Amino acid sequence: MRILVIGGVAAGPKAAARARRLLPGAGITIVERGGLISYAGCGMPYFVSGQIRDFDELFTTAYGIKRDELYFAKEKAVRVLTRTEATAIDRKKKEVAVTSLETGEGYTLPYDKLVLATGAGPFIPPVPGLDLEGVYRLNHPEDARKVAAGAAGAKEAVVMGAGLIGMEAAEALLKRKMGVSVVEMKDQILPAVLDPDLAALLAYRLEETGLEMFTGRKVLRLEGRDRVTGVVTDQGTLPADLVIVAVGVRPNVELARHAGLTIGETGAIAVNRRLETSDPDIYAIGDCVENRHLVSGRPVYIPLASTANRQGRVAGDNLAGIGSAFEGVLGTSVMKITDWNVGRTGLGEEQARALGYEIECAVNAGHDRTHYYPGHDNVIIKLVVEKQSRRVLGLQGIGQGDVVKRVDVAAAALRFGATVDDLAGLDLGYAPPYNTPIDPLQHTANIVRNKLDGVAETVTARELHDLLASDGDFVLLDVRTPDQFRYRRIDDARTLQVALGDLRDHLQDIPREKPVITICALGSRAWEAERILAGAGFRNVKFVEGGLQGWPYDTD
Amino acid sequence: MRILVIGGVAAGPKAAARARRLLPGAGITIVERGGLISYAGCGMPYFVSGQIRDFDELFTTAYGIKRDELYFAKEKAVRVLTRTEATAIDRKKKEVAVTSLETGEGYTLPYDKLVLATGAGPFIPPVPGLDLEGVYRLNHPEDARKVAAGAAGAKEAVVMGAGLIGMEAAEALLKRKMGVSVVEMKDQILPAVLDPDLAALLAYRLEETGLEMFTGRKVLRLEGRDRVTGVVTDQGTLPADLVIVAVGVRPNVELARHAGLTIGETGAIAVNRRLETSDPDIYAIGDCVENRHLVSGRPVYIPLASTANRQGRVAGDNLAGIGSAFEGVLGTSVMKITDWNVGRTGLGEEQARALGYEIECAVNAGHDRTHYYPGHDNVIIKLVVEKQSRRVLGLQGIGQGDVVKRVDVAAAALRFGATVDDLAGLDLGYAPPYNTPIDPLQHTANIVRNKLDGVAETVTARELHDLLASDGDFVLLDVRTPDQFRYRRIDDARTLQVALGDLRDHLQDIPREKPVITICALGSRAWEAERILAGAGFRNVKFVEGGLQGWPYDTD
Repeated sequence: MRILVIGGVAAGPKAAARARRLLPGAGITIVERGGLISYAGCGMPYFVSGQIRDFDELFTTAYGIKRDELYFAKEKAVRVLTRTEATAIDRKKKEVAVTSLETGEGYTLPYDKLVLATGAGPFIPPVPGLDLEGVYRLNHPEDARKVAAGAAGAKEAVVMGAGLIGMEAAEALLKRKMGVSVVEMKDQILPAVLDPDLAALLAYRLEETGLEMFTGRKVLRLEGRDRVTGVVTDQGTLPADLVIVAVGVRPNVELARHAGLTIGETGAIAVNRRLETSDPDIYAIGDCVENRHLVSGRPVYIPLASTANRQGRVAGDNLAGIGSAFEGVLGTSVMKITDWNVGRTGLGEEQARALGYEIECAVNAGHDRTHYYPGHDNVIIKLVVEKQSRRVLGLQGIGQGDVVKRVDVAAAALRFGATVDDLAGLDLGYAPPYNTPIDPLQHTANIVRNKLDGVAETVTARELHDLLASDGDFVLLDVRTPDQFRYRRIDDARTLQVALGDLRDHLQDIPREKPVITICALGSRAWEAERILAGAGFRNVKFVEGGLQGWPYDTD
Repeated sequence: MRILVIGGVAAGPKAAARARRLLPGAGITIVERGGLISYAGCGMPYFVSGQIRDFDELFTTAYGIKRDELYFAKEKAVRVLTRTEATAIDRKKKEVAVTSLETGEGYTLPYDKLVLATGAGPFIPPVPGLDLEGVYRLNHPEDARKVAAGAAGAKEAVVMGAGLIGMEAAEALLKRKMGVSVVEMKDQILPAVLDPDLAALLAYRLEETGLEMFTGRKVLRLEGRDRVTGVVTDQGTLPADLVIVAVGVRPNVELARHAGLTIGETGAIAVNRRLETSDPDIYAIGDCVENRHLVSGRPVYIPLASTANRQGRVAGDNLAGIGSAFEGVLGTSVMKITDWNVGRTGLGEEQARALGYEIECAVNAGHDRTHYYPGHDNVIIKLVVEKQSRRVLGLQGIGQGDVVKRVDVAAAALRFGATVDDLAGLDLGYAPPYNTPIDPLQHTANIVRNKLDGVAETVTARELHDLLASDGDFVLLDVRTPDQFRYRRIDDARTLQVALGDLRDHLQDIPREKPVITICALGSRAWEAERILAGAGFRNVKFVEGGLQGWPYDTD
């Protein structure tokens, strides 16, 4: 049995290694266009930032062996042809035409089973000046090496694109002590990860660390003679002596398309649960394939290293006749930027609405562990829940505390169609160093349940901000302590402060005829206040979700 | 509507607060025998250790208000009667007889709905000398205060009981720079949390930090004139000037029993999913109730603060007519001891076997995040899986890395009856600061899958240890690099070292007629070697699960 794998980065080597363990007698070959294989692409930002000092670490096993052609030959008995490009698939003859990029020589490689792991390439925006010196991408380890070298003398960096890679690149450059601006065409940062509300909150807090965010701006061109000196946008020019272009990737599907394999509606290669393409002798895995979203059931293109690795194993199993299925993805993405942890799984609010779901959401600010345990920190979690079925559609979180654990727990629950009630009932581990007796994730679930059950009415930070900008008549009732109020508050003529503990004794001070919006630091006291007022017969009371912790605007 | 709650620690106040939010007009009273209410019992060890300096922090909200009678009166409109003991329930008259422990006065309190949150009390072992000075428990904040005071001059502490509280107490005392020994009657530490294998590994590593563990020892008596001077066991006497007795708790069920309410087979109060006792006007919640185990379906008694809090909310809902269910528990427990994180969810191996499950297990040692990212650390995970159904029955983990996230993810998956294949397919978040592209949890799942699918054969550390102690003929093939082998190894006449990368070229050096056991640092190279040898026709090859990282014995 001859197995040929096209692509040597993540999914391809994984499939080859898995197949090798199961099929000791098979002939296995990997063809890779680049000079490097089996590298940790996700580690590139940490090399740029200087956190990883040795470039080779990106290619090294945990036990210190470099993952090169020799390693694959010796440890895996897998032949690797680097600097070799696959140019065409002949499905009838079952062979692939390849060209050596070293010698220019062309030849064919036969296969019984073929695995396409052709990955994704950077999207090149139609912007003049991308060829100037000092303009980089961050899609390949060699890019990382170039950026790290180019960063040495640079003072002002501009990152085009506020997606995962763009934001990680921005942080890496920030760590190298240069001024860093991020320009994003959409109205928010991390549009594929966060809804606008959490994105605004994160951007607000990141700006405190020195990152400058320019969202809703279109880059027109890069300027400079030989070397880049500025990024010209539709709203002014940003000075720059280093530019990273990170405006997304596109699946590499040309080989598959020319071979007549089915391309999915997202533009990536269509595969079934066994990861077979429309030709059962050809598998496709990793960044070049389309996946099924486990919540919506719809095809999506969400290229991620974790997916690539899991798919590699599934393809390896199926190559060896162990029936293995890849069920789909939740689009779970996590990232660290400065000291903020960011993550999401499942659908976002906007996404869910666009797909026609009728939903209820909640944003909750809390602590990642008991407030009396040293080192606790903030987490802000948003849940998206389908109203009728109470099924959880998605979760997003940001925070200096442990957000990622909550994302992973939700990812596990969403896999099984968990309802918001299920989520609230999970038997998660509790000890003061790790969380609160009711986990912030479950607290958020409880807020949604309260809303669904009609015992909590809320406004979002955005809605309050709009109300404050209007001349509407209402009371903004801050129920924090007087000390907290003095320290930081939303100063408005409509603001009133009554500490929660005094509220029951001061009901007569709250105008009954006006709408009342309660607010506190995190949300829970404001909700308690809402309940007190509603219980006392106030007709129009709502509390601000996430409190001041979730307030992405200036305070006084 | 009059709601009476007996017990003011965790579940009771939670139920009262929830009921208040839903029933603004109800009269709600909490009766508490002690002088303190709504305290963070789980924070006590951190007060003893000095990590929490202010005793009041254990009673304070996140926003700095002390949770005392006044707080409950003002914020919650809940009346709290402290130092008041409930002595009898008259279910016909619907009233509870109480006695003021201050004045000795007795009176009755009427109820429409009664909530029993009577908690648990320490088990007092039948050991002479428990009344000596310097002997403490750690069940109540006042205990913590006494221990902290008594620890001032103490030099040698002995903790009786190696359960969660005992181990947390031991660590707390260790932080106060005294010699600490733990005496446990069972053959292992943390018997309710870990199987013997992981417990042995943890004990081995904890002893390096200065904790001394004496398992399999029975305490006969404490000795000393007025003050304790030693702990006499069936295997010698341990000097001690401070002793903490932490040999478990028993549910406080006398009130319920005398009222004729059904007591379950575990000795705790029986409740249904709505948390009603056998009397539908009486709820029971928290440490005094029996729960259904979500994996085995059997009644269990596992008192935990997280359960108490979740049950408080469910009872509050049901008091207010919002139908809410408590589905059961997984026994999820986590703890931090020195820099080790420990946790479990679901059934352990021994527990599963005792319940008649036919199971497959795997122990896996790995990194909690990519090895090239600074600060990664070790995690050792064990999975217990039912053979036929492939359903995951439980997970345990120990490590200096992030074990608790994996426990929580498994707890979420187990809730839905996840199979080991489901677990391996979860779409968890990946970025280098948080984990590896295939999470260690999923890697462990893959090992179990390989075993179930017949493509991995293993021996456990314990089995290898027994084999080494025998005069059996086999080859222990260490496939790490020569450097790693020189640094640390199992020195035995049967040990052979061939680095994995050289193995395919040195097959002729491995005796074919003997059983071969391969070993490496974590397990993955040893498995690769097993595959290579099996592929080359070796008939009897197994690899050591968890490698040297999971080896709880001395090495050379």
